[in-house]
Amino acid sequence: MRGHRVPLTVTVALSRRLVVRALACAVLVGWGGVPGAADEGMWTFDNPPLKALKERYGFVPTQQWLDHLRLASVRFNDGGSGAFVSPDGLVLTNHHVASGQLQKMSSPKKDYVKDGFYAKTRASEIKSPDLELNVLQSMENVTSRVQAAVKPVMDEAAAAEARRGAIAAIEKESLDSTSLRSDVVPLYQGGEYWLHRYKKYTDVRLVFAPEKQAAFYGGDPDNFTYPRYDLDVAIFRVYENGAPVKSRDYLKWNTKGAAEDELVFVSGHPGSTDRLNTVAQLETDRDLYYPIGIKVVKRRLAALKRYSDQGPEQARQAEGMTFGLENALKAYEGEYRGLRDPQLMDKKKKEEADFRALVAKNAEWNAEYSGAWSAIEKAEVRHRELFKPERFRQIRGSGFAALALEIVQYVAEVKKPDAERLPGFREAQLPALQFQLLSPAPVYLALEELLLADALQESSDEFGAHDEFITAVLGQRLAADVVHDAFKDTKLTDVNVRKALIEGGESAVANSTDSLIALARKVDPFVRQMHKMMEDQVENIETAAGEKIGRARFAAYGRDVYPDATFTLRLSFGTVKGYPMNGTKAPAKTTFYGLFDRANSFDMKEPFNVPDRFQQRRRLLDLSTPLNFVSTADIIGGNSGSPVVNRSGEFVGVIFDGNIESLVGRFVYDDTANRAVAVHSAAIITALRTLYDAPALANELEGRAVPARTATTGTGKN
Amino acid sequence: MRGHRVPLTVTVALSRRLVVRALACAVLVGWGGVPGAADEGMWTFDNPPLKALKERYGFVPTQQWLDHLRLASVRFNDGGSGAFVSPDGLVLTNHHVASGQLQKMSSPKKDYVKDGFYAKTRASEIKSPDLELNVLQSMENVTSRVQAAVKPVMDEAAAAEARRGAIAAIEKESLDSTSLRSDVVPLYQGGEYWLHRYKKYTDVRLVFAPEKQAAFYGGDPDNFTYPRYDLDVAIFRVYENGAPVKSRDYLKWNTKGAAEDELVFVSGHPGSTDRLNTVAQLETDRDLYYPIGIKVVKRRLAALKRYSDQGPEQARQAEGMTFGLENALKAYEGEYRGLRDPQLMDKKKKEEADFRALVAKNAEWNAEYSGAWSAIEKAEVRHRELFKPERFRQIRGSGFAALALEIVQYVAEVKKPDAERLPGFREAQLPALQFQLLSPAPVYLALEELLLADALQESSDEFGAHDEFITAVLGQRLAADVVHDAFKDTKLTDVNVRKALIEGGESAVANSTDSLIALARKVDPFVRQMHKMMEDQVENIETAAGEKIGRARFAAYGRDVYPDATFTLRLSFGTVKGYPMNGTKAPAKTTFYGLFDRANSFDMKEPFNVPDRFQQRRRLLDLSTPLNFVSTADIIGGNSGSPVVNRSGEFVGVIFDGNIESLVGRFVYDDTANRAVAVHSAAIITALRTLYDAPALANELEGRAVPARTATTGTGKN
Repeated sequence: MRGHRVPLTVTVALSRRLVVRALACAVLVGWGGVPGAADEGMWTFDNPPLKALKERYGFVPTQQWLDHLRLASVRFNDGGSGAFVSPDGLVLTNHHVASGQLQKMSSPKKDYVKDGFYAKTRASEIKSPDLELNVLQSMENVTSRVQAAVKPVMDEAAAAEARRGAIAAIEKESLDSTSLRSDVVPLYQGGEYWLHRYKKYTDVRLVFAPEKQAAFYGGDPDNFTYPRYDLDVAIFRVYENGAPVKSRDYLKWNTKGAAEDELVFVSGHPGSTDRLNTVAQLETDRDLYYPIGIKVVKRRLAALKRYSDQGPEQARQAEGMTFGLENALKAYEGEYRGLRDPQLMDKKKKEEADFRALVAKNAEWNAEYSGAWSAIEKAEVRHRELFKPERFRQIRGSGFAALALEIVQYVAEVKKPDAERLPGFREAQLPALQFQLLSPAPVYLALEELLLADALQESSDEFGAHDEFITAVLGQRLAADVVHDAFKDTKLTDVNVRKALIEGGESAVANSTDSLIALARKVDPFVRQMHKMMEDQVENIETAAGEKIGRARFAAYGRDVYPDATFTLRLSFGTVKGYPMNGTKAPAKTTFYGLFDRANSFDMKEPFNVPDRFQQRRRLLDLSTPLNFVSTADIIGGNSGSPVVNRSGEFVGVIFDGNIESLVGRFVYDDTANRAVAVHSAAIITALRTLYDAPALANELEGRAVPARTATTGTGKN
Repeated sequence: MRGHRVPLTVTVALSRRLVVRALACAVLVGWGGVPGAADEGMWTFDNPPLKALKERYGFVPTQQWLDHLRLASVRFNDGGSGAFVSPDGLVLTNHHVASGQLQKMSSPKKDYVKDGFYAKTRASEIKSPDLELNVLQSMENVTSRVQAAVKPVMDEAAAAEARRGAIAAIEKESLDSTSLRSDVVPLYQGGEYWLHRYKKYTDVRLVFAPEKQAAFYGGDPDNFTYPRYDLDVAIFRVYENGAPVKSRDYLKWNTKGAAEDELVFVSGHPGSTDRLNTVAQLETDRDLYYPIGIKVVKRRLAALKRYSDQGPEQARQAEGMTFGLENALKAYEGEYRGLRDPQLMDKKKKEEADFRALVAKNAEWNAEYSGAWSAIEKAEVRHRELFKPERFRQIRGSGFAALALEIVQYVAEVKKPDAERLPGFREAQLPALQFQLLSPAPVYLALEELLLADALQESSDEFGAHDEFITAVLGQRLAADVVHDAFKDTKLTDVNVRKALIEGGESAVANSTDSLIALARKVDPFVRQMHKMMEDQVENIETAAGEKIGRARFAAYGRDVYPDATFTLRLSFGTVKGYPMNGTKAPAKTTFYGLFDRANSFDMKEPFNVPDRFQQRRRLLDLSTPLNFVSTADIIGGNSGSPVVNRSGEFVGVIFDGNIESLVGRFVYDDTANRAVAVHSAAIITALRTLYDAPALANELEGRAVPARTATTGTGKN
């Protein structure tokens, strides 16, 4: 559902299930893209941009080159990317991708988000409570099997059910036979369906993270901007059977980094794009999705601020979510600005008109495809009516309260045939869902209560006291009071209680006297009702129409295209290159000098202060060391933590952001100023050696002689 | 004439007479301004912004405070500002204001623009060839006398002549009686006329200038932008009767500078603004002035590039003009962008509609003023027709060739009564004009020839070979050939030849066989004809209408207003403050760290390389020293070199630019992002002491004990 597009690095903050949802809803987001000139495209590894690479750069990657890069690429299932960077299981990502886990490892006494962490020995590496990493092992085209399930006689609802049934069967079969995580992913609006099999890792231990002030230097103001000075890096080690995994496919480290104008690649997991949404869909986004979404996020940020203001511990608890929402807000505002720009909308209208004219010229295409756009236009009229009820009749705000609803739904869904289940509950999706439902991560009840109360009060403000949802959930009471009661006695903080409910099934849940489960039971029918209405009256129609448009695009423009992003592995490419900015030029890279300039320019005021260790060791640093750099590679949220590699497949940096000009990239790519921002490999090594007393880790990354210290650890087996 | 508005720091490059013209044409540019909230306004010293200062800052400047600042402020007549900063005649301005003189002091062997200069002794200070400085001594309201000359029975042409006659008489009388330079300046569209008397200095010697790469760091790309890292400073010493002038009113130096959020003032000479042009006038600008102006400048830059490419000496000769035109182009493009922004034009339309509605509501005002706008609208129709002929039937491109035309016109004009002369030739204006006509500055004939040929070829391209101007000037020949012949034998490079012609009067000029004078004689009648048509059919009508609008504005909005800029002394005020930029915040100041960041970010590539001395002495610098800073003070071209002072009237910096967001300030001031960019006082002292081995000069600026070295010089008398 398009309404679920959020920058994927913020999914933790918005809901624990959003990644799952994003995957489940990919049927609707997967509008296929036709690349223009320029370094455009988030290409699947089954269809890499060989033509563009050869024509523009004279580069022809071998299959081995592609396989190696794919197998070194890691998906962080809380919404980011990463890569193996050593033969002993080191995985590098961003601090802000790791920060959800860092927060869950933290306590009032130890704040790893704020203070960072370095494990001097393997024994001191800290296990992540609920981090799942995926590595894409294989891709199999299952289009014909999925499409064969849909018979011409079926109406849209029956077709949707048949499609879901086929997908679920393929996934289950694959899971059973390979034990690999198995996802069927619709691409090109259902023009193709691909079975992706992932190796899954859940024993992932923290090795290094800098303090947040180094990683997220410049805070929310500098977020999504460039020039930038962030050491947004975290390093984990992946274990299997209690020992570091032998990661054969890892990226060799190149401390020199990439030069200006050098060709680079980004391999990662862009969350979602809407480049080929129809104009009708974009108008709904412009008129409803963004203004409402922005209003909601602002309200929730205000609630978080109230909570943070209560004290330092409250501030610590709320910090991760605050980052996530500020990040989302800035992205939304950039995207919303794009949609309100008449030039962008005119371009979209012209593209669509040209496409439709091309289709109309061919009698066969015309008969087959030309009705699709008006079908979507009509469905969008209904979408606009359902938009608010679907959005506001939910458990929102609190990820913990959302667990209660998920438990209530879980026990009902697992009894149904796969094809009839709600999104996220398909058989093959259950292991990942259980992993989240049974996470031992700490729960901050007061914070969760405040957020749920704020969200329900918001729904009440939206619909008024006499709305049936409000009446059913709140009665005549204030949201704060209802939620307070629901939280007062809940035992769901105990993982065993959650486990017992799941295992106890429908009767256990129906008979539960847990106050939060009781609240969730009241909400559940409304969520189901709205989901059904949205599915029947909007999604199924648009899926069918979208498939037609997808096929029409293949017919009209050929197969040298890439699909919209779906949080699956993609290959982007581009050059390290500055761009016109603010009346002048932004450089291709920044240096540590710039960090100290910005800090002193703001008289060391937050969020522009440098951490103490930077000040203390400034004279030891070569300040001309590159810190961040930009390239034209086409990325979006979810690519956070993606490795940047050179022609030799060597690691030269890690993506952590896009510039402000890139936000409109959700709808259209333009390489004039759209840039991906990365941490430079030299900055990481310099920081480890000079600032963090971590020469052994730097040596391991650079592939120098295995440091002596590993011999002293007892945990690892190497 | 509005067509002559150019950023005043570039006047040297465009024409030697443009400052004079800007002054002469002030009748037409002087639309009065009504300040909004915010730190808006370029206020005359006779009507300082006391109300705003008191209300917004609780600051009440005394008359003494105002007089002191005014008398310390210096106008650089080639188009900039400056201030006395020592009791021994030191005047500080920008390198780019000084660069015209620096270039004239230079030779193929010694390039002071590029390499900078420091006079270790007074004896080694270098005299500027043709620099005139002015200090505003007094302001006298002569409105009633000027307006009394215009009788109700007069038509517009007679009224214009009567007005000019009265102005000329007042100026001449004042000059004769005081020997001070005397200019009558129309303000508020002729709502007021003021007699300004200036003390004039022409013995102005260079003391210090850094190398251009330090002064103009970042070159054209960084020009008109911020954050910035420029040491755009030059220091002269003013002499009278062979000795340094005892400058009683000088600004005390404050090396600490101004803090963020501190109130500061800028006292300088903004060239021109068009804030209250009518919509009809702005539309002519948008449709003709800017697109044509931008095309001309681009063409001339291409010609300069061809010349520069011939060798390093040619590049040196062309450098000043190239800077001037690039500077103009960037300003034009920013202003043009503003005019094409529908939001800006809508705002202007609304303001005008509101103003006219207010006038229409009052019967008396309605009868008196309401016809003025439609009179201007009608005149603008004619203006559009005359625009190109007036612009392209000229001696353009070459300042040297323009001298020939000025000589031809001079001998004719001085015989006429003052009121009948062309602008720039009024009796009181002659001393300044003679100073320019008889300048001993070097002339680069090959460069001047190329530029005149390019401009005449451009006119020919514009009008075609059969145009009467083209036929008269070029016959059937190529512009290059005609100009080559005109330059081949000219003797006008010799100041004595020019002098002889001026003194020989009309017969000497008529009988001159000088080839360039001959060419100028052919052009002269066309210039006169176009001037007359423009004056009769546009300017006189718009002056009369403008006066009405000016009076209407006083009536409707009161007297707490400031007039549009006219290259006369103005007081601006504001706070030191960053602003939202590029999705984040621009800091209030930059540091030397930032200079090294930008240099290293671009791998020391031009124009982002730092001068060698900066690299060599980097470790001696405290890199956290502030380098540039921004404030909300309202400025525009011509303010270059203006001192920034604090509440105590102390020097805390020198204005050298506006940011890219300020370019639209020609039409409208908005303090959200409009910022004036200045060099910080600390940067100047640090540079002098640490980089330029000039501790004695730093001591003199900081008012420390007179350094011993002065005792060793023989020239000065102190």
